[in-house]
Amino acid sequence: METIPNVLAQRYASPAMCDIWSPIGKVKLERQFWIALMRAQRNHGLEIPAEAIEAYEAVADQVDLDEINERERKTRHDVKARIETFNALAGFEHIHKGMTSRDLTENVEQLQVFRALQLLRLKSVAIMRELGKQTEDWRGEVITARTHNVPAQPTLMGKRLAMFGEEFSIALDSLHNLISRYPARGLKGAVGTQVDQIQLFDGNRKVVHDVEKEVLTYFGLPKLMDSVGQVYPRTLDFQVVSTLYALSGGPSSFAKTLRLMAGHELASEGFAPGQVGSSAMPHKMNSRSCERINGFQTILRGHLSMAAGLSGDQWNEGDVSCSVVRRVVIPDAFFALDGLLETFHTVLRQMEVFPAIIQLENRRSFPFLLTTTVLMESVKAGVGRETAHSVIKKHALEVVSALRQGQSLENDLMARLAGDPELGLSRDTLDQLLDHAAEQVGAANEQIDRFLERVKEWEKEVPEAESYQPLEIL
Amino acid sequence: METIPNVLAQRYASPAMCDIWSPIGKVKLERQFWIALMRAQRNHGLEIPAEAIEAYEAVADQVDLDEINERERKTRHDVKARIETFNALAGFEHIHKGMTSRDLTENVEQLQVFRALQLLRLKSVAIMRELGKQTEDWRGEVITARTHNVPAQPTLMGKRLAMFGEEFSIALDSLHNLISRYPARGLKGAVGTQVDQIQLFDGNRKVVHDVEKEVLTYFGLPKLMDSVGQVYPRTLDFQVVSTLYALSGGPSSFAKTLRLMAGHELASEGFAPGQVGSSAMPHKMNSRSCERINGFQTILRGHLSMAAGLSGDQWNEGDVSCSVVRRVVIPDAFFALDGLLETFHTVLRQMEVFPAIIQLENRRSFPFLLTTTVLMESVKAGVGRETAHSVIKKHALEVVSALRQGQSLENDLMARLAGDPELGLSRDTLDQLLDHAAEQVGAANEQIDRFLERVKEWEKEVPEAESYQPLEIL
Amino acid sequence: METIPNVLAQRYASPAMCDIWSPIGKVKLERQFWIALMRAQRNHGLEIPAEAIEAYEAVADQVDLDEINERERKTRHDVKARIETFNALAGFEHIHKGMTSRDLTENVEQLQVFRALQLLRLKSVAIMRELGKQTEDWRGEVITARTHNVPAQPTLMGKRLAMFGEEFSIALDSLHNLISRYPARGLKGAVGTQVDQIQLFDGNRKVVHDVEKEVLTYFGLPKLMDSVGQVYPRTLDFQVVSTLYALSGGPSSFAKTLRLMAGHELASEGFAPGQVGSSAMPHKMNSRSCERINGFQTILRGHLSMAAGLSGDQWNEGDVSCSVVRRVVIPDAFFALDGLLETFHTVLRQMEVFPAIIQLENRRSFPFLLTTTVLMESVKAGVGRETAHSVIKKHALEVVSALRQGQSLENDLMARLAGDPELGLSRDTLDQLLDHAAEQVGAANEQIDRFLERVKEWEKEVPEAESYQPLEIL
Amino acid sequence: METIPNVLAQRYASPAMCDIWSPIGKVKLERQFWIALMRAQRNHGLEIPAEAIEAYEAVADQVDLDEINERERKTRHDVKARIETFNALAGFEHIHKGMTSRDLTENVEQLQVFRALQLLRLKSVAIMRELGKQTEDWRGEVITARTHNVPAQPTLMGKRLAMFGEEFSIALDSLHNLISRYPARGLKGAVGTQVDQIQLFDGNRKVVHDVEKEVLTYFGLPKLMDSVGQVYPRTLDFQVVSTLYALSGGPSSFAKTLRLMAGHELASEGFAPGQVGSSAMPHKMNSRSCERINGFQTILRGHLSMAAGLSGDQWNEGDVSCSVVRRVVIPDAFFALDGLLETFHTVLRQMEVFPAIIQLENRRSFPFLLTTTVLMESVKAGVGRETAHSVIKKHALEVVSALRQGQSLENDLMARLAGDPELGLSRDTLDQLLDHAAEQVGAANEQIDRFLERVKEWEKEVPEAESYQPLEIL
Repeated sequence: METIPNVLAQRYASPAMCDIWSPIGKVKLERQFWIALMRAQRNHGLEIPAEAIEAYEAVADQVDLDEINERERKTRHDVKARIETFNALAGFEHIHKGMTSRDLTENVEQLQVFRALQLLRLKSVAIMRELGKQTEDWRGEVITARTHNVPAQPTLMGKRLAMFGEEFSIALDSLHNLISRYPARGLKGAVGTQVDQIQLFDGNRKVVHDVEKEVLTYFGLPKLMDSVGQVYPRTLDFQVVSTLYALSGGPSSFAKTLRLMAGHELASEGFAPGQVGSSAMPHKMNSRSCERINGFQTILRGHLSMAAGLSGDQWNEGDVSCSVVRRVVIPDAFFALDGLLETFHTVLRQMEVFPAIIQLENRRSFPFLLTTTVLMESVKAGVGRETAHSVIKKHALEVVSALRQGQSLENDLMARLAGDPELGLSRDTLDQLLDHAAEQVGAANEQIDRFLERVKEWEKEVPEAESYQPLEIL
Repeated sequence: METIPNVLAQRYASPAMCDIWSPIGKVKLERQFWIALMRAQRNHGLEIPAEAIEAYEAVADQVDLDEINERERKTRHDVKARIETFNALAGFEHIHKGMTSRDLTENVEQLQVFRALQLLRLKSVAIMRELGKQTEDWRGEVITARTHNVPAQPTLMGKRLAMFGEEFSIALDSLHNLISRYPARGLKGAVGTQVDQIQLFDGNRKVVHDVEKEVLTYFGLPKLMDSVGQVYPRTLDFQVVSTLYALSGGPSSFAKTLRLMAGHELASEGFAPGQVGSSAMPHKMNSRSCERINGFQTILRGHLSMAAGLSGDQWNEGDVSCSVVRRVVIPDAFFALDGLLETFHTVLRQMEVFPAIIQLENRRSFPFLLTTTVLMESVKAGVGRETAHSVIKKHALEVVSALRQGQSLENDLMARLAGDPELGLSRDTLDQLLDHAAEQVGAANEQIDRFLERVKEWEKEVPEAESYQPLEIL
Repeated sequence: METIPNVLAQRYASPAMCDIWSPIGKVKLERQFWIALMRAQRNHGLEIPAEAIEAYEAVADQVDLDEINERERKTRHDVKARIETFNALAGFEHIHKGMTSRDLTENVEQLQVFRALQLLRLKSVAIMRELGKQTEDWRGEVITARTHNVPAQPTLMGKRLAMFGEEFSIALDSLHNLISRYPARGLKGAVGTQVDQIQLFDGNRKVVHDVEKEVLTYFGLPKLMDSVGQVYPRTLDFQVVSTLYALSGGPSSFAKTLRLMAGHELASEGFAPGQVGSSAMPHKMNSRSCERINGFQTILRGHLSMAAGLSGDQWNEGDVSCSVVRRVVIPDAFFALDGLLETFHTVLRQMEVFPAIIQLENRRSFPFLLTTTVLMESVKAGVGRETAHSVIKKHALEVVSALRQGQSLENDLMARLAGDPELGLSRDTLDQLLDHAAEQVGAANEQIDRFLERVKEWEKEVPEAESYQPLEIL
Repeated sequence: METIPNVLAQRYASPAMCDIWSPIGKVKLERQFWIALMRAQRNHGLEIPAEAIEAYEAVADQVDLDEINERERKTRHDVKARIETFNALAGFEHIHKGMTSRDLTENVEQLQVFRALQLLRLKSVAIMRELGKQTEDWRGEVITARTHNVPAQPTLMGKRLAMFGEEFSIALDSLHNLISRYPARGLKGAVGTQVDQIQLFDGNRKVVHDVEKEVLTYFGLPKLMDSVGQVYPRTLDFQVVSTLYALSGGPSSFAKTLRLMAGHELASEGFAPGQVGSSAMPHKMNSRSCERINGFQTILRGHLSMAAGLSGDQWNEGDVSCSVVRRVVIPDAFFALDGLLETFHTVLRQMEVFPAIIQLENRRSFPFLLTTTVLMESVKAGVGRETAHSVIKKHALEVVSALRQGQSLENDLMARLAGDPELGLSRDTLDQLLDHAAEQVGAANEQIDRFLERVKEWEKEVPEAESYQPLEIL
């Protein structure tokens, strides 16, 4: 039968992420796990010949999925099929000693999760670097900040980027914390008591604890759980997926904002070299990548629901009602966020900002945004606050009305205010206010500086992000 | 019109949690915030008379919601109504200087969130203590561990409790981390640039930064955000609600397991003194509280969805599309988890375990659970592995069949095995195995010990939990 | 303790919806149910004096919640407390015969749901009427349709409204179907076998079936379930909430589009008479109501998750793990959609569209949108398709670039094309094309006509919607 | 790179469902759509040679995905690549006339959805038949109904099955209704006005309407939308996925109940011929398939969240933010429900019920369940109600206590009651009551009859379900 591919893996996720979750990749990781365990068991006195371990190592990368599937059809047991295949390849029978299936699968899946979390941290810090760069590049660009999607006050384009960057950074804090405390289930046996592994070591509980620590340390996992059942607590899976979801928040808000800016031609997500708009309308620059970022977040919200459904649903020492769910949600959530981050990174690097259009918008909006300043100046000049307020309000509403009726094409509020003797402000004074409007960005520059410091801290934390390059996206 | 009460607050949440979120409580907190700001502004040179601040303080607790609502009807602006009311009470007009509405509401809501998080941590650690106590109490009780809801291997009742306790502890790690880094939005103005506050201090950005730090430090908030918009990033709200959800996982799995155990009469959630079962059937002990715990988790899953919908949906510098959502989800998620934790705490203290029934179950299940041990002994005694396996399998299936057909009422597997000469094991040997079955709990005791150490660490972290008492629940 | 109100009921839902779900309203409905049952039981031979029924009827509206709560504190049983209170008021003891608590609560809650569904249908059809009216009003207004948030082709403002109206109508189909088949649980007793009711009628199953049909028919419920347990299947609750959610889709898409249009000043959600923008910026027209509509949908998505958690979670004949969830989700989902529909209705009536700004946008965008037509004309005039395509593309990209660089303020594409001899089209021809651009709206008018027919069908289906008036919203 | 398969399709969904959604299947369906359109266009006067259509038909099934992907890499446009490939195969260029990409993809995806809905209806009715059969088979088996997971009243095993069957049937109503009104988007062009198709037919709107009706009727779709944008309203996708979710409710409740029954050895999901339990414990019959059914539902809850995120998020005439989401959620929700239904069907056919164990349970629980009947008899015999109640309560609580303390192994309540002179009932009378306890199943048989009638109605509605056979599951 025709294979139906995992669409998230095939179209959007990076090769590095796919490698972690691919069927062959998983078989290889299982074999590494078995080998690490044999070595630890041998170190602690179990009789496993060194040459056997070497024999397993020699064939560990020879993975033939068809053969494994063939054996599974016979044994009707997936883990047994993989044990037999590896044994047959190596010519020994020393793997999987004192283990139940879950001792294998739970730990190997946790290793996949752990490595995938580290990969996402690397990418996230690389994105923080790019965000820092863009923030720096656009710190000089005064734009019209919008609340309720209408002009509100001036701000800096760089600060707007830092704003989404700070949201992203808060989520990265969470990811960082999770990685630092991510606990492995270890070799706990069928109901969590380690009884089989302990039997293997003639009742020596201490040695068994050392063996499992040695194995998990080998793979870099920071902690070991104690009291688990057949499975590790699925609340941990929920913590993983909710951490992934949090990472989608900043990029998704950024993407929506860029889609809005593109609608005003203030910015565009840019094109890859050689790319054009739709064939029929070459000028049409669709924010497809930003839309896709928002789509990924909707997918992740579904994954969040699945992971939430795993937590709190353990009956006694556990069962496999979580199994089919985890087969879907664990890899797919990583694929989706991976695709999202790759897309976000690319958009950050390719996006274009159009200062000329920004200035047109500022010209139209700033007179309105200055009304509070005009009020203050008028009061300073001796006019009553109530009077000034009502004069300004009257003219502002008239200008809005004129613009909306098409009676005027330019925002002439300053001219109108200058012409109203009740306000007591000269045209010169008002023009000067308007000229300096762009300076009314408060502490935006200092905020940018503090954001850049945060970026530096992340760079120090994850220095290997420096050389990371995003992939070419679809 | 008749008031429709918030059912989560009214029926399930504790008074301490309700106080944080009550309409009057919020008005009081706003006033504290205004006063703290006035003091900080005055400290940094703004002209606010000390007697004005004192006047505000004197009336800060005089809250009349009807009066505020009356003013709101006139002004059609909720924050303005509350400003005017407080000013009228104090006889001054010094609050809310250089502030926009969001400078008030965002920070005050964050204070509510922060205090509610701390309250939940207190309760959670008190629960950890109770879990430790019960684990200790039941560490001697050997039970039949179940996987797939059928008997699997022996374990300890105490270890089963530690298992759910460890799941809870992992979630508590997350809560603890969130509290330690929870950042406040601060006084950032209409689009996040602080322009109004800076204008108030004649352009002195440094002073404004100091003022906002002073205010937030006063309230104990550990960090301050830098680059926000009109609102703080909603991903933070998502992190709060997902942390709450994670805390529901361990209790919910525990509750399902207790409902299962009650179905076998192995345990019961217990009754409050004086409580009986249903009037028609006084012997019927329904696990209503455990069912409710599971219900709370379903509710929280809905809150998780709402919070997830807030994150990644910021348009430009923000708007109020999140407002109605946050009015619902923020308090309600706290009410729901609060109710869940109170219920969980009560169940832990009241639950009953029935050793006699447990022993009946063990007697029936242990012969089956011993089959792997019998196999080993038989091999030791010189019987071929394949032979031994097939003999045991044959008898085991026959016993299962006899029990299910009603042909026998007792599990007589050991007798049958003793009677089969192919297996080569005497009745004595087999009886001895059965007598020692209860010792086959592997490292369960050591796991309990490590869990109790973890409990001690939490006690040190949050010592005030020692004196916490759960409330009487519905 | 201070009552914390249900915020959705208090701030957003209509009095009619609140009446259905209010604590007093529910007590009254329960009493109506008991009375209807007594009457049916009496009709079928049970000895209940007519004067007793009259006595109950006389006091049915005398509801004192405090008294009921007082009794509940004593009996620790909510239904018993309400039985005793009603009996005490009437001076008889004839209600609740052969009933279990769930026979009361399940049916009464279903009655609430059924009435609330009917109320929503009424409001939805009233909204369809308003959509029809607005579609008609704006069918003459040619606007620039946008895909990917950038100009794509001309369409009609009326057609855009019909588009959202059609989405709403599809959801209304679902609501209509649900109401027509909504089945009541009936009087099924503790595990669904009706054993108590049958005992009451000396084993006569036929009579019991008639009694329950009579009661449910009295309340207008169209169908009766057969094989239920202690509870009716919660999949039905899910169908209710998912139908509510579907109704939020059209309004929510409309609201987002209006927020976008407001950002371009093409339209505004309008103000209530006397309302102004923010005090500081009176010209600023924030789409607060549209934002709120989107917020309501996010809330409903949470309710959907809660309701989904109820379905498929029945253990045996049922329990109360659904109870706390249903106390929250059932009323709250109705409150939220009620608030959403009221807001949507109001926005539809108050919204403003600004033709002058629309024309400015059209002037800027239409030359681009005409490129395919120009291509066809050029080919007709004998120019090669490839040549024409490349000439048009070159000029289009230049114009885009000039506009974005601020080199030109007007879209002069037509002039440029007229000046390019390779294309072979005169300025006149091109100007004519542009003049007729507004006619390029395809079948938009016919689509509007068909939408208006659909509106008429709904009007016929629910004629009482004609007189429905939306409420004043916050 | 290694292909990562879609795990739901690969492991769980049926070949028939995979065929609908496979990449090759979709290409074929697109080609059928193009051909149907050419035929309709030709019928209405467009010049398309009959031999061209035949040429396309001749090669329609020759699908080479690699070639298409190769072309996509060059054109960077997926639809264009598929057009070119088909044209090249046929040697003509007549497909896709007057169409935009969405005219192709939206309709073809709707066709996939429509066919998949029909396939699920077929399977669901086949399951209804099986449910009817099992209900009939087990209508004679009296079991102890449980509420709160503890014994409550007698019922019939057949009635318990009918109960889940009725839940399933309510969901099937919804599916049936959706299929009957599922509307196609049709050929609406880039923004929904049909302008391109109309241009193709020289402005004849009537003909275009006829053409699109002809095409959609050809494929069996019952309705056509009118006012759409670039996309059809995504609320329709939500209706599809929520209908699928509703179908998971009954099976999921059944599966949980069977898992509970298996825990008491009352029933088992059965084994496929040749299958055994775990190798280590051959007697251990794990309810893996039932657990998987519950897992599928958790997955579908995630899909529901994704689909809910699509509805209400249309900006203007639409964009592709829904695209990546729909690529995941639409096929995957069908795969998941398909897997769930196949599993459910198999479990229904293979499940075992153990009457001997059921009788043991009844023997233990019935004396308790009879307490209300004993009370009535005692009152009839002249004992005061209060006295009788208190005597019964005293003994019931003592028996419960004795059983739980291990002081007695049998429920001797009847003996104790007989021995208490205060109650005035002889041992004979009480024994007789107990003997007839099994008859206390009220209207369970009539309810079963009505359920079987409902099954018959479904059979008449979908007669082809008679020959449907479930597949072998994993």
